[in-house]
Amino acid sequence: MKYSKLFGRTTKTVSSDLKLASNKYLYQAGFIRESVAGRYYYLPLGMIVRDKVVKIIEEEMDKSGAQKMLAPVLHPLELWEKTNRTESVSFELMKVKDRNGSEFALGGTAEEMMVDLAQKFNISYNDLPFHIYQFSTKFRDELRARGGLLRLREFLMKDGYSFHADEEDFKKEYEKMKKVYSDIFKRLGLVTLMVESDNGYIGGEYCHEFIVESEVGESRFLYTEDGSYAAHEDVAKFLKEEKNIEEKEQKLIEVKAPRGNTMEDGVKFHKLPLWRQIKDVMFIDEKCRFILAIIRGDLNVNETKLKNITKAVELRHATDEEIRGLGSEPGFISPVGIDKKVIVAADDSLRTIKNAYGGSNKKDVDLLNINIDRDYKPSLEGDIAMAEQGFKNEQGKELLAGKGIEVGNIFQLGYHYSEKMKAFFTDKNGKEKLYYMGCYGIGIDRTIATIVEKYNDDNGIVWPEVAAPFKAHLIALGKDEKIYKQAEKIYEDLLKQGIEVLYDDRVDVMAGEKFADADLIGLPWRVVVSEKSLKAGGVEVKRRDSKKSEIVGIKNLGEYLNLK
Amino acid sequence: MKYSKLFGRTTKTVSSDLKLASNKYLYQAGFIRESVAGRYYYLPLGMIVRDKVVKIIEEEMDKSGAQKMLAPVLHPLELWEKTNRTESVSFELMKVKDRNGSEFALGGTAEEMMVDLAQKFNISYNDLPFHIYQFSTKFRDELRARGGLLRLREFLMKDGYSFHADEEDFKKEYEKMKKVYSDIFKRLGLVTLMVESDNGYIGGEYCHEFIVESEVGESRFLYTEDGSYAAHEDVAKFLKEEKNIEEKEQKLIEVKAPRGNTMEDGVKFHKLPLWRQIKDVMFIDEKCRFILAIIRGDLNVNETKLKNITKAVELRHATDEEIRGLGSEPGFISPVGIDKKVIVAADDSLRTIKNAYGGSNKKDVDLLNINIDRDYKPSLEGDIAMAEQGFKNEQGKELLAGKGIEVGNIFQLGYHYSEKMKAFFTDKNGKEKLYYMGCYGIGIDRTIATIVEKYNDDNGIVWPEVAAPFKAHLIALGKDEKIYKQAEKIYEDLLKQGIEVLYDDRVDVMAGEKFADADLIGLPWRVVVSEKSLKAGGVEVKRRDSKKSEIVGIKNLGEYLNLK
Repeated sequence: MKYSKLFGRTTKTVSSDLKLASNKYLYQAGFIRESVAGRYYYLPLGMIVRDKVVKIIEEEMDKSGAQKMLAPVLHPLELWEKTNRTESVSFELMKVKDRNGSEFALGGTAEEMMVDLAQKFNISYNDLPFHIYQFSTKFRDELRARGGLLRLREFLMKDGYSFHADEEDFKKEYEKMKKVYSDIFKRLGLVTLMVESDNGYIGGEYCHEFIVESEVGESRFLYTEDGSYAAHEDVAKFLKEEKNIEEKEQKLIEVKAPRGNTMEDGVKFHKLPLWRQIKDVMFIDEKCRFILAIIRGDLNVNETKLKNITKAVELRHATDEEIRGLGSEPGFISPVGIDKKVIVAADDSLRTIKNAYGGSNKKDVDLLNINIDRDYKPSLEGDIAMAEQGFKNEQGKELLAGKGIEVGNIFQLGYHYSEKMKAFFTDKNGKEKLYYMGCYGIGIDRTIATIVEKYNDDNGIVWPEVAAPFKAHLIALGKDEKIYKQAEKIYEDLLKQGIEVLYDDRVDVMAGEKFADADLIGLPWRVVVSEKSLKAGGVEVKRRDSKKSEIVGIKNLGEYLNLK
Repeated sequence: MKYSKLFGRTTKTVSSDLKLASNKYLYQAGFIRESVAGRYYYLPLGMIVRDKVVKIIEEEMDKSGAQKMLAPVLHPLELWEKTNRTESVSFELMKVKDRNGSEFALGGTAEEMMVDLAQKFNISYNDLPFHIYQFSTKFRDELRARGGLLRLREFLMKDGYSFHADEEDFKKEYEKMKKVYSDIFKRLGLVTLMVESDNGYIGGEYCHEFIVESEVGESRFLYTEDGSYAAHEDVAKFLKEEKNIEEKEQKLIEVKAPRGNTMEDGVKFHKLPLWRQIKDVMFIDEKCRFILAIIRGDLNVNETKLKNITKAVELRHATDEEIRGLGSEPGFISPVGIDKKVIVAADDSLRTIKNAYGGSNKKDVDLLNINIDRDYKPSLEGDIAMAEQGFKNEQGKELLAGKGIEVGNIFQLGYHYSEKMKAFFTDKNGKEKLYYMGCYGIGIDRTIATIVEKYNDDNGIVWPEVAAPFKAHLIALGKDEKIYKQAEKIYEDLLKQGIEVLYDDRVDVMAGEKFADADLIGLPWRVVVSEKSLKAGGVEVKRRDSKKSEIVGIKNLGEYLNLK
């Protein structure tokens, strides 16, 4: 490709909003452009990268025995109603009606469609297992889209679905896919960590995320140094040590407490430890239910865990006004005597303390010696606590905190979908049995962004060869026509030798700008043809990630690059 | 691929609704499954075909200098409003709102998006021309979807858009794309005719369809035997010879006419020629406007031409009740004295006759000696007549009628989009100028269906090798384990030699069924391993489109197939 013909150019000017390296460089180097928030154009350079990433995933999936197919983007809404996902996906689901009034979901994931498809065949035990996958545009009406390709509202996803006769057979596939996924990301230059995670609205009992460690990632996880444990903070379990559980229960008393509204204010005023205080957080869910999360004062609430035990889909903090509307008081909320319509969700850490203190639902009045069961009865009880660095996991090992980008995930679905959709196969005895299922996803756009996050420097992208749009960036320098003729010949020769080249053939652009563009675009090899290089006996060749260059004879250039 | 592992099987039972060969065979052979009308799953076999077709189109487009990229599927609706396509596409446009209330069109074509993208760059004359294209899912809320892949509501389209400094430069690209398209279809085994056509809601001044002749096609066109003329019936022009134009205008008179409602009833009753009668057809458009199409009695109205001169988007026939509501009478409608709110659209053939006859808007009363301008004044006048076989074109050459499937189309857009979207480039003098544009589309699914329509026989599909999912169908016969071991070895060997093989490894299936499946799926080569073939010295090799088979030694098989 000649740079003068390429659609999409590098640009020096870049909005200060583009903070992430992937967003900034993919924009500046001319790989992508934003349409509206969360929806992007791929320019020709970006498209080549996307195709390469897709091809690698496809190769590894095919090798694993999975079969590529394709479902429509619009899913009949009645299928999503069968599995109750019209409810559970809620606001992220986009819906559209056709001229006949039929409703469709813009596919976010395709479990229902794949089960629907399987149901069109008389599948027997003989046909199992099978794993079908697709690359298709997915839609999620995210509340927040992040800049660039990291969190999109419209994106390309590789989603695979496996169908099995039983759990045992599924587990083999699940283990296989763990390896396939690691291999895929490894080929793409990404080291992934596999962490237990929350299944969101996918359903099923367990799942794992593939995470590339990165400061800009939004996946927070906890792990042990020996590698025996890694889990997303939304599911990470930890030991909640017993505090003063041996104490005798004292009488509940009300005391005047003209204090501020924070936990620290409570500690200072009562001169009692933080862990002995009850932390109360009032939420409102998408159905306008009031949910009071209570937890030991030294811990924090994890909203995903809270959603899971309350079956809420979306949560927001109640306003001061809403809290007062309940006959309570901000900063003084208490499960003791709270309005009966409030769902009180208690973290099980409250079982590790006695004679707690906290608000009374009245301004400047606190309660002392609050005891669970005696003074209040939670509507729900379980683990809603946020695991933190330094806590111990259930095996007593210290947890470390990590942060990264989720590039893929794998889910056990079990009978979740086959039950709801009444999807059967015929077993050896001619009986109908439910499928046992799994599903497996990779976000293509996010994977590309992650590669750029991991492979860049101050001057631009430093593509790993496997994902680079071209292998070499050929630059002709100067104004001399001879140089350009020579470069053109080299360009043609390299193409003939199967080497992908971007040739900067611009005559009216200075050397500095050409070099800066080459660094920004980040192809693995830079090849410069100049009067100087020709005098020295060839072209000047430099790896993007190296400072050193060397002169390579023109005749040997193809071989040189092909061997690298 | 082993048949026993393949997802998606052949089936003998097929609904009698599947009348088209492409629909029936692609269903029976396990290439596709319907989700709901107009929306299809591609099964693994179909997916391979789709990928091959896409690859060929991509190769030819790239060779032509066009550059692949990708726009989002959801187009901000405000872009479509700028070009007024929210109106002109009307019912075929699907719209969706996101959680923030932003509206999007589900892309049908992407002119607005590409112009929007071009506007994100400071494009100068130096950067022109460029041609960018994509493969992307398109949505059209068609009133009727046809069975199978011929007319879908969701489909894959290759759509390209070229940007030029002026008309002259555009014309070069337009001529180039004519050749590129012919070449693409030729590679896919399809002979295409290029016919002038209507641009529908795309805009611009002229366009061409690429049509594969076929009895099941919906594109009707007229052409001359010498190849000098070919046009879709929606745009085909023909000579409207003068009839009794020399006659003196006679006095308009009303006569009792107790006759039936058809044109023939009028001819019989008055004993006057059909061409002298005025044909009146009352339509109602999407805006509830009454449109009366009038035309010489021996001609028929072409609704697309009528839409074009009336700027209607959708037309339907008025009911008897609606006609009476206008103070007229079914079978006796007349432009003479019709309700003033009716738009009278006259075909220019009415200028070729004098003293016409027809209804009077009153039951059983006709008018004689009706003359245009004197007795009625059309609101609009132009060509709304259907060209038919036997008519003469404007050069006096006889028209022949053809029928076929539209697999691609190319459009001159001119300044249509750049004007409406105020899209400029900077010319040599630093002045802003509008782009001159063209666009170019190929329907992938319909192309696949067309290949099957052209390449099939009574037993199934007969794939041209270029689009076949595999080159060879390897069949092991009998129950003898040795045969299967031998076949397995051949399978592995062929794969190693780069030959794509579908291996029917089923042990419990009879020879007849295996042969029938091979014919149905339609791979170019059938290779049978049986006791008989081994005794004869190898495997039995037969082309799908031939009756003759021959024995080929196992060692030579790969070479034999690779040379074919």
